[in-house]
Amino acid sequence: MAEQPKTRLYVDSPLAEGQTVGLDHERAHFLRHVLRLDRGDPVAVFNGRDGEWLALIDGFGKGWCSLTVEAQRRPQDTVPDLWLVFAPLKKGRIDFVAEKATEMGVSRLCPVFTRRTDPNRVNMDRLRANAVEAAEQCERLTVPELADPVPLARALADWPEGRTLYLCAEAGIARPIAEAMRSAGSSPAALLVGPEGGFDQSELDEIAKLPFVVPVGLGPRILRADTAVVAALACWQSLAGDWTAGGGDTRPPFRSPADPAA
Amino acid sequence: MAEQPKTRLYVDSPLAEGQTVGLDHERAHFLRHVLRLDRGDPVAVFNGRDGEWLALIDGFGKGWCSLTVEAQRRPQDTVPDLWLVFAPLKKGRIDFVAEKATEMGVSRLCPVFTRRTDPNRVNMDRLRANAVEAAEQCERLTVPELADPVPLARALADWPEGRTLYLCAEAGIARPIAEAMRSAGSSPAALLVGPEGGFDQSELDEIAKLPFVVPVGLGPRILRADTAVVAALACWQSLAGDWTAGGGDTRPPFRSPADPAA
Repeated sequence: MAEQPKTRLYVDSPLAEGQTVGLDHERAHFLRHVLRLDRGDPVAVFNGRDGEWLALIDGFGKGWCSLTVEAQRRPQDTVPDLWLVFAPLKKGRIDFVAEKATEMGVSRLCPVFTRRTDPNRVNMDRLRANAVEAAEQCERLTVPELADPVPLARALADWPEGRTLYLCAEAGIARPIAEAMRSAGSSPAALLVGPEGGFDQSELDEIAKLPFVVPVGLGPRILRADTAVVAALACWQSLAGDWTAGGGDTRPPFRSPADPAA
Repeated sequence: MAEQPKTRLYVDSPLAEGQTVGLDHERAHFLRHVLRLDRGDPVAVFNGRDGEWLALIDGFGKGWCSLTVEAQRRPQDTVPDLWLVFAPLKKGRIDFVAEKATEMGVSRLCPVFTRRTDPNRVNMDRLRANAVEAAEQCERLTVPELADPVPLARALADWPEGRTLYLCAEAGIARPIAEAMRSAGSSPAALLVGPEGGFDQSELDEIAKLPFVVPVGLGPRILRADTAVVAALACWQSLAGDWTAGGGDTRPPFRSPADPAA
């Protein structure tokens, strides 16, 4: 048996024993010249559908690399049904949101334009690349879905029945976030975090009135939008999501190669 | 009465009515050339002891600016007694930790060197500058204290009686974080977050055995150290800290100038 894989890659191809997986230029370069891997070296791969598999490097060519899939390492699992609805932030901060939301187990990223949203477009390729990289790194077996960016009003008009939307409200009446989420159970949920500088006041008032919206408060300090994202996700995951499993061990069931126990 | 202050500055000077406050070159430049403020314009100031005050610009000189303190805007308050004990991360990630921990209401930042800590020194001036900037921005009335960086073993050997240390454990037996913190009450607490790549296994085992340590788990995904900081702080603040206040409004009692209600 080969040693532990030094890396973990998200791929599009179906994964099953004996399958061949081709990697593009960028990944081939990464394996060969950054990690200095060679023919026969192991790599972990996942595609969001078939679990995680051990694959061995078949060979490198000019701008490609091929792998042969050997054995399944983990069966497919999923993350809780939690959407993050967020106003796009400036470069850097939005990369951060994609990375952190993925680590925090969001199932779907929904960029929305609010009245005060600063960037008026979203680089979806970049958003996706950040989410993929974070999924590889945090040992998720899925990459969050990306919804097309739409105006917030439209996202709210089309809101699916039965999904609670927790509004991270920086003003107005709201419930303390832990109190609101403690009683949430495992029903579908979404968090809404506004733009830097906050929602427009009348916009905030309109959102708060919607029947599926629960305004929640994140304490007495003004949080940056990107901080609020991680903080609100942590509250939900720890109180209603997949950090709640009792019985001792809730840490990653399958550790990275750096862990001798893996 | 002058209009709302466009900025909020942390200063060292005592603050009381009629007091003069001098600002250094960097701040004078910021007020004059970035914000384009002039004589008579208002600025909010705080020093961590005397609350927040309205001050008016007296005048600018070559590399300085002086303010006259007018009236108190908010009485002094404090943050909960919560320390963050963390292994220094690379530049960028450690800036982020200082910013986020300040927003999240940490009272003391304690950098510690673990066995696998990558940077072997900490730029304390930079850490402090990031904490000050975040305090100004998030409307805190204090800047977190900075402890001198020490080896983790020494921080643990000198641990103060009565302070619980929540160990963010990426392996081994741990309680789900919300379950552990729900019963915490308002006693002094600290969170310990390890370096990128995690603690050394034997180090983790040793820490977990200490009588004041409660190992907590942050779910089934591998979080980056900087993500774990914000996530664990959010859990503590929302369950045992100052995000718990009932009675409707737990949001910032005093809003930034962008808010028309401020």
